[in-house]
Order: sequence, then structure tokens, then C-alpha cells
Amino acid sequence: MHNETSTGVASRIRAIRDAMDEAKHPALLLVDTISSLGSIDYRHDEWRVDVTVAGSQKGLMLPPGLGFNAVSAKALAAAPRARLPRAYWDWQPMLRDNAAGFFPYTPATNLLYGLREALRMLDEQGLANVFARHDRFAEATRRAVRAWRLEVLCAEPREYSSSLTAVVMPAGHDADAFRKIALERFDMSLGTGLGRLKGQVFRIGHLGDFNDLMLAGTLGGVEMALAAADVPFARGGITAALDFLAHATQDLHAASGR
Amino acid sequence: MHNETSTGVASRIRAIRDAMDEAKHPALLLVDTISSLGSIDYRHDEWRVDVTVAGSQKGLMLPPGLGFNAVSAKALAAAPRARLPRAYWDWQPMLRDNAAGFFPYTPATNLLYGLREALRMLDEQGLANVFARHDRFAEATRRAVRAWRLEVLCAEPREYSSSLTAVVMPAGHDADAFRKIALERFDMSLGTGLGRLKGQVFRIGHLGDFNDLMLAGTLGGVEMALAAADVPFARGGITAALDFLAHATQDLHAASGR
Amino acid sequence: MHNETSTGVASRIRAIRDAMDEAKHPALLLVDTISSLGSIDYRHDEWRVDVTVAGSQKGLMLPPGLGFNAVSAKALAAAPRARLPRAYWDWQPMLRDNAAGFFPYTPATNLLYGLREALRMLDEQGLANVFARHDRFAEATRRAVRAWRLEVLCAEPREYSSSLTAVVMPAGHDADAFRKIALERFDMSLGTGLGRLKGQVFRIGHLGDFNDLMLAGTLGGVEMALAAADVPFARGGITAALDFLAHATQDLHAASGR
Amino acid sequence: MHNETSTGVASRIRAIRDAMDEAKHPALLLVDTISSLGSIDYRHDEWRVDVTVAGSQKGLMLPPGLGFNAVSAKALAAAPRARLPRAYWDWQPMLRDNAAGFFPYTPATNLLYGLREALRMLDEQGLANVFARHDRFAEATRRAVRAWRLEVLCAEPREYSSSLTAVVMPAGHDADAFRKIALERFDMSLGTGLGRLKGQVFRIGHLGDFNDLMLAGTLGGVEMALAAADVPFARGGITAALDFLAHATQDLHAASGR
Repeated sequence: MHNETSTGVASRIRAIRDAMDEAKHPALLLVDTISSLGSIDYRHDEWRVDVTVAGSQKGLMLPPGLGFNAVSAKALAAAPRARLPRAYWDWQPMLRDNAAGFFPYTPATNLLYGLREALRMLDEQGLANVFARHDRFAEATRRAVRAWRLEVLCAEPREYSSSLTAVVMPAGHDADAFRKIALERFDMSLGTGLGRLKGQVFRIGHLGDFNDLMLAGTLGGVEMALAAADVPFARGGITAALDFLAHATQDLHAASGR
Repeated sequence: MHNETSTGVASRIRAIRDAMDEAKHPALLLVDTISSLGSIDYRHDEWRVDVTVAGSQKGLMLPPGLGFNAVSAKALAAAPRARLPRAYWDWQPMLRDNAAGFFPYTPATNLLYGLREALRMLDEQGLANVFARHDRFAEATRRAVRAWRLEVLCAEPREYSSSLTAVVMPAGHDADAFRKIALERFDMSLGTGLGRLKGQVFRIGHLGDFNDLMLAGTLGGVEMALAAADVPFARGGITAALDFLAHATQDLHAASGR
Repeated sequence: MHNETSTGVASRIRAIRDAMDEAKHPALLLVDTISSLGSIDYRHDEWRVDVTVAGSQKGLMLPPGLGFNAVSAKALAAAPRARLPRAYWDWQPMLRDNAAGFFPYTPATNLLYGLREALRMLDEQGLANVFARHDRFAEATRRAVRAWRLEVLCAEPREYSSSLTAVVMPAGHDADAFRKIALERFDMSLGTGLGRLKGQVFRIGHLGDFNDLMLAGTLGGVEMALAAADVPFARGGITAALDFLAHATQDLHAASGR
Repeated sequence: MHNETSTGVASRIRAIRDAMDEAKHPALLLVDTISSLGSIDYRHDEWRVDVTVAGSQKGLMLPPGLGFNAVSAKALAAAPRARLPRAYWDWQPMLRDNAAGFFPYTPATNLLYGLREALRMLDEQGLANVFARHDRFAEATRRAVRAWRLEVLCAEPREYSSSLTAVVMPAGHDADAFRKIALERFDMSLGTGLGRLKGQVFRIGHLGDFNDLMLAGTLGGVEMALAAADVPFARGGITAALDFLAHATQDLHAASGR
């Protein structure tokens, strides 16, 4: 998982690859980039990942309905030795038909047109700028969280996610009750805590087709919902975020050295 | 002009009508509701207006392209005596063909489908709630302006506009230079000052298909642009607006007794 | 009127201009191209027309909502001498604001995006091909009409319209009763006869975003509706049209020497 | 396969079920209705089918992207005994989450809105009328094929498909060369022959959001392409189809007693 959606933690895939190489471990490295591709820098070839899976509905700014696999030569070579019976999930029919510009099964045709346009939009902005834009959103969001005197779930700055931020609720306050108020009062759907984080965190997404004013609206909604839900917090999170957004240069990403 | 778009001042049409009646003045009362219809309470019949003109592109939440005329019996009776030659602007062909469900000229057909849907949306929310929603936006915006230590152009509270707010720039600062920064940095188009207000005011629209988070995004954008443009202002306008929005009951409009 | 919509007759504008010139007549030549622009060859400058009016909803393949004026220097010079009071219809504010890329009144913005795309589509196909395509449709339609043993209203081949064909109903049969059956049974809206042609003709449009199969569907619908309405006619009109369409070279237009 | 897309043959599922019952065969009956659901009468419960699969992109008139499973109690009971490992294809997570109105995986959300509208459209027309409409299209198409002196691939009238018709090319003529001409000259994409029918048949679809005039356009395109490709055929197929469509009562389906 390049970006862990339920916690807002980004894995350092390159470091994992390096560790595997150092240990001379033969396992295939499989990476889920569903909530990071097109929002956080990711390099399938350069980082020598074996299988990358992605979807259309996050950083690619499309409705859900397309899934993508990037497959290394090593993974392709391993596939015939796999013993799990498979048909739809088999790469061979897809590779064979794609070579001639076709699909072995009826694809979600109209999303392919959307994909062409989404890729044009990413190219037009430039991937480095896209990643820097998301880094800015994430930093602004964390500044808002801290100004509210709340806590970002991810404890390790090197693993901050640039596509979403999970926020820990103060003890004694139910994150889902808060989320319900945000939805009913401000028509804003915040992510729920999953598994053992249920009720303890809420998640703020800031990925894909997203700009400074949308983030201002989102953080404004969180600040209002905190007040409406009587959650103890300090005012001014949004002001802290705006301060940062108004002044931050756009080259954060370059500076972060990712 | 029910709502004066260039200044953010709403006329008290009923009071004007009363004054005309008191003076027994025979003039027709013509009202332009282009920037108010569907955002600010307006009553063509009850206020005995003679001609009301409106458009599709503001409170009716549609693209520009439809214009509307509401015409009193008195105005209809006066029309044949008017000496200005007219063809397209003549009401008679329209009234005649409309009676059978037709138009004398090719109408902007697809906007008529949009209009049907827009009217359904307004009915579903309820007009009183629609007006109250805009009153809340306007009050929140004025609170932001005051917290920034800037000035609302409209000096008379009874004439505050609920569809837009014109803000006076501090002396020595050009509103249009500021608007340019808002556009370039935050992709937000603020209204310009018109006529002798050119360069002295900018206008914030908060009408039509608009909600609390959009207002938070808009005011966040203004606050960031003020900072980016080095306009002297106090931080926290958006916080003042959010405070109000988070706590204000939805029955402002009922309370305002308009 | 370059193309007379109610009769399917195209005027020879160049010949009219030549006649005016020969007679040294000083009148301005005003041409309505609403149902021809983008479907039938037309040359405002080359034919020395003074004012051309056009709309978005026919050959430009857009919804109704945009009107266009092309104005000669002579017409511009004459305008200030015109004594009809005018405001919205005055060319000067439009020319002045257009020069800077603006409009004096709120334009139907989203149709302007559509217009850009429509012009791209026409350019991509090439205007000569667009006109030839419409000439083919019109000739195929006339062949269908003749095979049905019905009559094309336009008696002068040099004035055949390439954007629509008006068809004379056999005596004793009401064109509007026939049109009603076409609408109810086949969901196809044929044009009605206007003025003194009411009930005597129906009109088949074949302009704009239109291809061979749409024409086959249209003529198929007319043939079925003729049968369903018990209008006396000979079968096979559509076969005659298809024969022509299948074999006609695409350079009819060049050949026609228009 | 309720409707065999590659041949235009509809299976008599009820008869198959009866034969299985008579033989007391314990096998599950699985039926693919991808090219029939919403076009040809089908009854999962009444015919006691165990698993029905369907998709969004044919009779449901939507883009590709949704798949459907209808599962009998018997099939559900059998599922836990199946030994093929499965995750995404497992019914249990879907049944569990659907019960609460959710999905275990991100669904193609916007197609669900389209589905709601498609079902409304089918209900509005009435399923019996929808099926009768497709029966009419199929019969009209077969009449066109016979009038062209070509052959319908399906030899058994009780198994004619109402959603598509496969047509046998005359010996010595390549169906795919013909299809290429139809595509290039008339922008019409006909279905190719699959497997051992490659080059020997082409397929005409007449399902989903389809009306009489679209069928006239389609058959007109086939007739023109046959001429353009120098395939030996008799003219008048479209006339035969139109004759039938113009006069056929709409209650074919009721009459057919399916």
C-alpha cells in the first residue's frame, strides 16, 4: 500500500525495495497505489516494483470503474507458475488483445475517454506541480489540525500522506457522531475510521481535482462541524491553513527531496 | 433595480410603491430583479410592480440565455400607447403564442428544461429557506469584512443585499490589482467596481446554487488574496464568518421580518 | 433570405447583388442565413452583402441562443443615420467591447464554448465537404420524393435548398394530419407548412450534424408515415435515395459549380 | 446463454429447465443474459434459474461497467462447497453489505444513477411493450434480409433472437471486407463473425434504446454498404422492413405467446 487510506500514512516503497534487495529476498513486491497515483510521486519502474495496482477514482479524477495493473517482467514470468485458477484476472488475454488495441472483455469505454482527458490535464499541469500541489494541501491541513489542538494520526513526518489526513478525535468524543453532524449540517462527507480506529479518527481527503479554495471550504466545514458537535478545539485552524497557503511557494515538493 | 449589482444595495420596492401611491403618481413601476430573483424575497403581484425583468443566470442557477418579463394589467394596457417602434420586444406576439404553449421566435429550448429543474430545486428547498440561506451568507460575509477591518459599501442595514457584498478597498490600494491576484493565484473571479467605483471596491457574490462550504472557500480565497496582495487587513475574517454560520439558526429570514 | 425555410427555396444572392449593382441601387443588402449558414455555401464579403444575420441552432449544430451579425463598412456607416431608437440592437457597444474581448451584455457563455467546438468540427471536415454533404442529402431527398410520386415545392432547380425540402401533399390530404401521424407513430417531427401553405406541404430538414444513416432513418420515417396515413404514394422512395447515396461521389458540390 | 450474441440465437431456457427437471439432474442452471436482459423476456425466478448474469451495456441502455448476478437459494447453498478460491467473486461480502445499502468495494457509483433512470424508462414503457418493440425490430430485420436474398444464420424460428440478427454472406464474399466498407463509408459498426463464423457472417444489433427510425437508418446503411461492396443482393430489403413496421400492430409479443 503506497498510501494507506485508512490512516493517512504513506509507505516508503523505495526503502522497502532496498531492504528486500539487501536481504536478497526473492518475493515479488506488490504495491497498491489506489489512493496515491496521480497525487503522490510514485515510480513503478525506477523503484523496481513488480505489480502496481491503481484505480480511476482518486488521483485520476474519474468516476470509479477502471482498474490498472503495471507488471514487471519478473512478475510476468512468475505468473504461469501460480496455481490459483484464474480467468478474468489472468494477464495474458489482456496483454495479447491490448497489443492490437483491443480488450478481451467489454471495457468501460466511456471512462477511457475520460482517462485520456485526465492524463492530458495531469500533463498540462506537470506531474511535479501536481505532487507539489498535494504536498501543500497536506501541510496546510496538518497546520489546521495542530491549530485546532487536535492530533494527526500519522506520527512519522516522513510518512505523512499527501492525499489524505486522518485526525484523532479527543478522548470521549465519537468521530462518527461528529461525521454525522458534518454531513447533515454542511453536506460534507468525511472519511470514517476503519477497523480498530472506528469512532476514533475521521479522515480529510485532499486529492485529485482539488484546489486551494476547495481546501478552504473543506477545512471551514470541519471547523464549523467541530463547533456544532461541541468537540473541544481551538478556533483558527483554517486561518493557520490559509496563512500557509497564501505564502507557501509552489516548490515545496522539490524542496522535500522525495 | 431590486438588487443593485454594482454596489450590493437592495432597494425597498414595497416602500417605493407605497410612496408612489401616496403621491398618486401615475408612472409605471419597472423593476430589474436580475441579481435578486430566487435569492432575495420579491413579490411582483403583492408589491404591485408593473414590469419585472429577470434572467436565468443568477438565482435561477442556469447559464445565461433566458430573460423573463412579468407584466401587470396596467402595463399591458399602456403598451399600445407607447410610441417606440418595436418587434422582438413587443409583448403581444409572445402572449398570443404562449397561450397555446408556443413561442413566436425560436426559444433557447434546452434552457427551458434547465428552468423546469431549477424551479423544482427551489420548490423542494422552499422559497423561504432559499431566502434565509442567502441572508445567512450575506450576514456571514459582512462579519468577515468587518473582522478584516474593511468596510461594506452599503451603509444602510435595511438595504443590505443578500446576493452580493461590495467591499471598499483601503485607500491607496487598487481593487483591480487585488482582483487580478485573486484570479491568478486562487482561480477566483471577484466582481469589479463599476463606473466611479472602479478600482475602489470589489464584489463578493453569494447567490444561487451556493452553500456554506462554498462561502468558506470564497472567503478563504479573499483572505488569502488580501495577504498575497499586501493589502492591510486583520486576519480572522473567515473565522468570524464560520462562527456565525456554525451557530446561526436557519430562521434568520423569518426573524428579519422582510 | 438566403434559404427560405418555409418553402425550401435558396435565393441566388450573388445574382441579386449583381442586379442591384447594375441598377446602381443604393439600398443595403440584408441577408438572413439562419437556415443556411454552415450548410449551404455563403460568402458575405465576396458577394458584397451589407448585413448578414445568422443563428446557432441550424448549420452550426448548437442549441438556439446565439445570434450573429456580419456588417459591411457601408452598413456601419449608414447606422448612425438610422432614426429608429435602439439600445440592445445597436452595433456600437458590441463592436467597442468585442475589440477588447468582452461583451456589453451577459452573453450565453456556454454556447460560446459550443461554438468554438462547432467551428472546429466544420474546419476539420472542410467547408467544401460540408456543403457537398448537404447537396447530396438534398438530391437524395428529392429523388425519394419523386419516387413516391410526390412533388418538391421548389420548381426551379437552380434554387433548390440543400438544407431542407418542402414536399407538396396530394390534393385532398392534409399535411398536418400526416405530420401528426409521423410524430405519434415514429416520434419524428416534420416541419409544417407556413402561411398560405398551411396543410399543403410538409418539410424535411437535412442540415447540420446529419449523416447518410440519419437521412435513411428520416426518409424511412416519411415512407412509413405516408403508408400509415393512407396518403396515396408509390413505394420505394427510400430505395431511390439509398441508390443515389451509395453511388454518388462526394464531389457533387464542386460539380454543381455553385 | 439466453441470447447467443455471436449467432443471434435465443435459447429456450424454460425448456432447458424442464428437461433438467425431468431428468432429475442436480446441476445448477447458469444463464448469461448479457445481450438479452431488458430486450427479450426473461424470468429468473419463474424459470427457476440458479445463477443469472447480466451487464449494464445492452438492454439496460447504459455504458459498460456494471455486472449483475441473480442467485437462487440453491446456488447460494452450493457456494460454500465450491473449492475454487475466490475473493472479489464471492457473493457473501456483497450480500452482507448490500443488506445495509452498501458495497464491499467501491462501486461504479455514477452508473448506479444511470441504472435508476434506465429502470424508470423500462417501467414507463412497460416491459411487455419493450419486448414487443424488440420482436418487431427483429422481424423487420429478417424481412429485410430475406428481401435482399440473403440468409438469416439462425435456422430455427423458435430461437430467433430479438436483440440481434446474424446474416450469412454469399459464398465468395468476405463479411469483414463488407463491414469495413460499412464503417468507412457510413460510419456504421456492424458486428463481426466470431470463431469459425469469422468472415462468413455479419451481425445487426437492434436492442436497447432503439426505435423504428434507427432501424430504418441501420438497414438503410446495410443496403447501401451491400451496394458499395458489390455484394450480390436484391434491392428493397429496407422497403420490406418499412412495410412491416408501418403496419405491424404493437402486440406481436403478446401474439407470439413467449
